[in-house]
Amino acid sequence: EITFSGTAVMGVGDNGDSLDNSARSVMETYLTATASGETDTGLSFGLESTFATYTTDDEEFTDDGTSVFISGAWGKLSMGDVTEADEMPGSFSDIGGLSGLGVDDVAETYTGDEAAGEFDRESHDVNYTYSGGALTAAISAQIGAQGDLDGEGDGYALGLKYSFGDAYVGIGYNDDGVDAYTDVAGSATTLYAGGTFGAFGVKAMYTDFSADTGSILPDGEAFGLHVSYTVEALTLMAQYAQSDAENPVSFENYEAFGVGAAYDLGGGASVVGGVAQITDWDRDDETVWEAGFSFSF
Amino acid sequence: EITFSGTAVMGVGDNGDSLDNSARSVMETYLTATASGETDTGLSFGLESTFATYTTDDEEFTDDGTSVFISGAWGKLSMGDVTEADEMPGSFSDIGGLSGLGVDDVAETYTGDEAAGEFDRESHDVNYTYSGGALTAAISAQIGAQGDLDGEGDGYALGLKYSFGDAYVGIGYNDDGVDAYTDVAGSATTLYAGGTFGAFGVKAMYTDFSADTGSILPDGEAFGLHVSYTVEALTLMAQYAQSDAENPVSFENYEAFGVGAAYDLGGGASVVGGVAQITDWDRDDETVWEAGFSFSF
Amino acid sequence: EITFSGTAVMGVGDNGDSLDNSARSVMETYLTATASGETDTGLSFGLESTFATYTTDDEEFTDDGTSVFISGAWGKLSMGDVTEADEMPGSFSDIGGLSGLGVDDVAETYTGDEAAGEFDRESHDVNYTYSGGALTAAISAQIGAQGDLDGEGDGYALGLKYSFGDAYVGIGYNDDGVDAYTDVAGSATTLYAGGTFGAFGVKAMYTDFSADTGSILPDGEAFGLHVSYTVEALTLMAQYAQSDAENPVSFENYEAFGVGAAYDLGGGASVVGGVAQITDWDRDDETVWEAGFSFSF
Repeated sequence: EITFSGTAVMGVGDNGDSLDNSARSVMETYLTATASGETDTGLSFGLESTFATYTTDDEEFTDDGTSVFISGAWGKLSMGDVTEADEMPGSFSDIGGLSGLGVDDVAETYTGDEAAGEFDRESHDVNYTYSGGALTAAISAQIGAQGDLDGEGDGYALGLKYSFGDAYVGIGYNDDGVDAYTDVAGSATTLYAGGTFGAFGVKAMYTDFSADTGSILPDGEAFGLHVSYTVEALTLMAQYAQSDAENPVSFENYEAFGVGAAYDLGGGASVVGGVAQITDWDRDDETVWEAGFSFSF
Repeated sequence: EITFSGTAVMGVGDNGDSLDNSARSVMETYLTATASGETDTGLSFGLESTFATYTTDDEEFTDDGTSVFISGAWGKLSMGDVTEADEMPGSFSDIGGLSGLGVDDVAETYTGDEAAGEFDRESHDVNYTYSGGALTAAISAQIGAQGDLDGEGDGYALGLKYSFGDAYVGIGYNDDGVDAYTDVAGSATTLYAGGTFGAFGVKAMYTDFSADTGSILPDGEAFGLHVSYTVEALTLMAQYAQSDAENPVSFENYEAFGVGAAYDLGGGASVVGGVAQITDWDRDDETVWEAGFSFSF
Repeated sequence: EITFSGTAVMGVGDNGDSLDNSARSVMETYLTATASGETDTGLSFGLESTFATYTTDDEEFTDDGTSVFISGAWGKLSMGDVTEADEMPGSFSDIGGLSGLGVDDVAETYTGDEAAGEFDRESHDVNYTYSGGALTAAISAQIGAQGDLDGEGDGYALGLKYSFGDAYVGIGYNDDGVDAYTDVAGSATTLYAGGTFGAFGVKAMYTDFSADTGSILPDGEAFGLHVSYTVEALTLMAQYAQSDAENPVSFENYEAFGVGAAYDLGGGASVVGGVAQITDWDRDDETVWEAGFSFSF
């Protein structure tokens, strides 16, 4: 028989070591599997295996899929691999349904974990979200300069979402807190709108990015639209995304368009697939595709 | 309380990035542990930890113990860390019972995950197996040049097994798909036979390897025999394996012989041990041994 | 639905390879998660993911949180990430309650996994413990020179604990088994005493370290005291630790003092925090602190 137990800590502190000189976020989780058995003569045997996660004391902050939270009527405080607050109002899904073809990444050039392509503009480890009626408000931050970019500091983001019926509008803002003269410093403001209208679904986002003086990124804007149509078990999707830098040099203009489909087999299984035409940091007007199965348990 | 959920995708696609220029297999799995609790005053707290596996988009294909499947009357399609089809008819167990002493690896010089010693001749990520009555047929492949060998391409293998009573015969074939002029290219045909006859068990395999022109491996053959005898809780085992290269230079002739025992303590526990005399890529006529406990839960 | 199964082996052996030339401890664990589902038309799908641990065949022995055991009236034999026997009688907790501020590490300069600061004096992979009435005795060892220090050999430790009522006394001894002329070789004897007296708790330890001739560590001693006071849900803690080298050069004298508090919220949650003044291998009379939540599931 195998059973699980766990512990977690979350908080802030200053450990005074040579890596940082100010308060930083602290989070650790320990998930322990315990297996036990008994021989015919009554000897006990077993194993104990602990899966430990240290999100915030690594030099490089890791979005490793682990988070800890405490919540009440006052809202929810999370640490670890949290949602960046400016993405809360309406983050996109991608085309393809397997690994994803990356159409959404073009629209999210300046927002979220993938922001700024190979750079790492925004990667937060603390999130506080409050929901009251139709309104949801969130703030997220990276506490302590634990990142791998020179001069990286305390970045933060804000998000606000208003829902009415099956539709929503929202706004998000992020400031990466990195050092302008060596990195991708700037702030991004994003507008979101979307909803489900019968068989149709739509999601749109527009980001305006304002670079700090000295940033290696120029000013720019990004736009994305995702539409879907569902009839019985079949859902068809199309997505367009564009990212324009005002003065592109090392950071070019990107564009992506894709169509996809998912057919629900029931029980948590789907047949999925998609094809897209993508120009981004890694691909120059290439046609990409994927097709297969998606399962949930 | 700790609960688990999961998702998985499997399929094929072309992501158009600089690592590969053709279709490759796509597989990802996400296993999520969710822990929750409640304080005396009704606050909720918890953790969520996701263990993610990306089998096929790493530069180096990883046999990491993760696979995904879909199956029906038409057979079973698996992706990830799958059985190489030419090993399906009758792969060996090893002598020792702990980490294993490596006697079987000599017989499997040209087949399976360990093929070609420190080289990596065969490591597949897709398997399709069909069983109909006494007959089992399988095909496996590596789709996309994601391996770490120069010129590695799409390798594949076939296997066929016929069972009668407690005995079986089978045949397997693999072609590694690597570039002959830099690597260990060639094809291997393997015959299998074995069965359980009262207290006795026997497994045998013989492989004929035909190197491609320019391969750093010469032609060769490998042979293995594993016999066992069980009386009540005690099982005794002996294994002999030999691998002969036709024109050995960098790839020498190997030979291994071992004996082992396992005593079943009941409840999933055994006392195990073995000793072997081995000449292979790492050991020159050395006596190796191991002894201890084996548990299953 | 997701279910778990597992296997484990533990023992000793000699694999004859180029890494070691004598018996070494052998331990492997495999924990497997199996997920399954069924589509509306009756197709089966699933995933299988195995988390494997090889504690002892890595070049660097890893305290990775995984252990295997077999136990009976004769005691308990463990392998993997085990308690060093000389720490068994009374290891400390730290101040802070999150990652811990490191006050205890100063008292444990010569004992346990953290022994000798950045060095790795003691890290065992086998432990045998016997408990009979008030007496507990333990022996632990590292079998086989698998460590990363030049000349590292078979280290071992002994521990003895006598309990009376809610109090205890104990003694521990360790010898690291490393090569004196290149490393931190020596032996450490530690006395322990402590207990719970109503609302008060106390734990004390004193270690005398005797360096081998040629060790880069001088002779030294370390001392630690941890006191606590609990009133209803609140526990207050104070800890003092000191480590003195007789002839300090590269290995300085350390001192640490800290106070902490934990407030039990019920259900496995606590508010925790602490502050300490620490001089050790990484910090020179620095004030460090942490505060937050601690959860168990």
